[in-house]
Amino acid sequence: MAVNLPPIPNLLPVAGFEWGTAAAGIRYVGRDDIAVLVCSPDSVAGGVYTQNRFKAAPVIVAQENEGNVRALLVNSGNANAATGKRGLRDAKRSCQQVATQLGCQADEVLPFSTGVIGEFLPMDKLQLGIEKGLQNRSQDSWVAAARAIMTTDTQPKGYSHTFDIRGQKVTTTGIAKGSGMIRPDMATMLAFQATDARFSGAVAKQLAQDLTEVSFNRITVDGDTSTNDAFVVLGSGMVDHERIEDPTSSDYRLLRDGMAEVTTKLAEYLVRDAEGATKFVTIQVNQGRSERECLQVAYTIAHSPLVKTALFAGDPNWGRFCMAIGRAGISDLNPDLVSLYLDDVQIAREGLVAETYSEALAAQVMAQDEFLVKVNLARGEASASVLTSDFSYDYVKINAEYRT
Amino acid sequence: MAVNLPPIPNLLPVAGFEWGTAAAGIRYVGRDDIAVLVCSPDSVAGGVYTQNRFKAAPVIVAQENEGNVRALLVNSGNANAATGKRGLRDAKRSCQQVATQLGCQADEVLPFSTGVIGEFLPMDKLQLGIEKGLQNRSQDSWVAAARAIMTTDTQPKGYSHTFDIRGQKVTTTGIAKGSGMIRPDMATMLAFQATDARFSGAVAKQLAQDLTEVSFNRITVDGDTSTNDAFVVLGSGMVDHERIEDPTSSDYRLLRDGMAEVTTKLAEYLVRDAEGATKFVTIQVNQGRSERECLQVAYTIAHSPLVKTALFAGDPNWGRFCMAIGRAGISDLNPDLVSLYLDDVQIAREGLVAETYSEALAAQVMAQDEFLVKVNLARGEASASVLTSDFSYDYVKINAEYRT
Repeated sequence: MAVNLPPIPNLLPVAGFEWGTAAAGIRYVGRDDIAVLVCSPDSVAGGVYTQNRFKAAPVIVAQENEGNVRALLVNSGNANAATGKRGLRDAKRSCQQVATQLGCQADEVLPFSTGVIGEFLPMDKLQLGIEKGLQNRSQDSWVAAARAIMTTDTQPKGYSHTFDIRGQKVTTTGIAKGSGMIRPDMATMLAFQATDARFSGAVAKQLAQDLTEVSFNRITVDGDTSTNDAFVVLGSGMVDHERIEDPTSSDYRLLRDGMAEVTTKLAEYLVRDAEGATKFVTIQVNQGRSERECLQVAYTIAHSPLVKTALFAGDPNWGRFCMAIGRAGISDLNPDLVSLYLDDVQIAREGLVAETYSEALAAQVMAQDEFLVKVNLARGEASASVLTSDFSYDYVKINAEYRT
Repeated sequence: MAVNLPPIPNLLPVAGFEWGTAAAGIRYVGRDDIAVLVCSPDSVAGGVYTQNRFKAAPVIVAQENEGNVRALLVNSGNANAATGKRGLRDAKRSCQQVATQLGCQADEVLPFSTGVIGEFLPMDKLQLGIEKGLQNRSQDSWVAAARAIMTTDTQPKGYSHTFDIRGQKVTTTGIAKGSGMIRPDMATMLAFQATDARFSGAVAKQLAQDLTEVSFNRITVDGDTSTNDAFVVLGSGMVDHERIEDPTSSDYRLLRDGMAEVTTKLAEYLVRDAEGATKFVTIQVNQGRSERECLQVAYTIAHSPLVKTALFAGDPNWGRFCMAIGRAGISDLNPDLVSLYLDDVQIAREGLVAETYSEALAAQVMAQDEFLVKVNLARGEASASVLTSDFSYDYVKINAEYRT
């Protein structure tokens, strides 16, 4: 059901990182559900984590342990969320299990879990999975890892990019899982992006924030956010350029922009693989007073169930867009200035049906798998875009049947 | 598809008010789509109107004309919204059409429209409908009016109640249409409630606000709001008690509480007839610091697509409730204190699965058509409840196929 989601491309190995995967039988049968990332000794990690007050145990531990890291442990099938003190002990014990195998400290391991909420981790299965995963680790296992962390995803998601910093070639590869519960401030999504560039732990953290802002915080599926979301940036420092310490430096900007090529692709893939999605829609809001108010309008449109069902139907029911714009909370918005386009077809002009409007043309735009909804507020210079999907029968079906 | 929505009961005539209805063929075939309410000369009206910035033309005119009124004109099938200056002229002309027939002023007529957005009203058809409607008017036509204002509603909705003010019997009858786009700050809903009690225009306005607060602002279907929402309270003053002028008086409270018996029923019926609803669910949040924060949590649960699809599935997937509570925006919420019940079955206790929890029992509760989701925040004394429905295949179907 994914919308033009390409098959996962070849993912480039990143010097200093090896993934190992294993089938631990946590919940799924006949597939890997454990992925362990082993990092070279000087690696750093920084992340962005769920804003949900019900924060899962592994997220709490990962936040504590970020900085200098030696490994990431990821399991699918069980979220270790709403599991209280025992959940926290389990998450820490899982770090110790990895640390014992690798001969490092438990607080150099970051744990991540995704799957069913409210059940305890099966620690024995986890232990066996970790051992098995560590045995088969390799630099070439990024695709296998992308597969092991999936839940309702229809396909594994990953992307690689290379770029230069002061004449040195830098590689970055990222993987992500998501689909459903995706929105700003993060979502049921896990994303891990590594690079062989050299930077401090503080820069890793800043990178995670800056990259999130232009990628995961610009997508939404259903407005829900999960207890387990995390996006982690890792650097092994294996490339021999001057270590980046200053997030205002030009080297930092090179690094950030190079890495953003991967992060924005991962975000786009999450929307293309949204639960039950049949449409991939860009909501672009222009001529607002601030980026913030443009985002506010874009998100109100993107979250409206009535808009999302109209997107599914391919119905140019443009009153629903107006309805959503009108309730976006901009109290001094003048509806008589607002214009609306579907791709290049003008639908409304200054709050009214455009004279040139033809329902047939609009329906043609919406019959496509992908299209642009463009709103001009005519009150400023700012713009913002959000990527989203529709609500289909399958959205209901998947979420009615799947136990998150 | 309505959830235990009773057939419309006998609606009591209210002295001073007569409805006339007609089939004007605005959009629907073979059914009435015009309803005109004629009010006795001393009648007053006050309303609460949509907060949407795209406010439909009739709503703008109704707001201007409230106070002393002689008639209400309602049509279904066309919302006269996003129709600009011409829509405003049409709405005013429709008032003049009624006024000419009745021999009153155009600004004593309040117009209301519901249906498709972005099309102009067919003024000739409207004229004929008004004439026909006025000819057949009667005190006993409340049910016919409830039927004429329907759009996607599966049944007409109305309710009557009698009570005493200082030994005098007062009658109140209300009708409403809704289903979809229902949420706080009003929705695609029209509701009209008349009484023969005596009060000023200012009191009518205050009543509309106070009654909305305990009824329509406590229900939600999909979080969307329409361009045309209105709830209007009318008083004919035909009962011979002292005229109520002071909204802090005990007579006002008697009046308000008596009328609330009808308004809360209308609100409940709107949820029971929500688009594609298969469940009628009360979300009750207790032990909050303020009513406001309780409502915030209740609405976040009620609007979550993941919760709503779990309600549809009857799946006690309680992690989704936690997820919604956690993202409700209470930044200092301690999840380790939160408890959750489905009816009397305790699901979570202090942020964890309750020791007594049994999935079979929880599934039994959720298999019912109606049940209670109870959240205890354990941080204060305040409470609030919201009524809502689920997201079903039919919600998608209805909204994918119906042109709002």
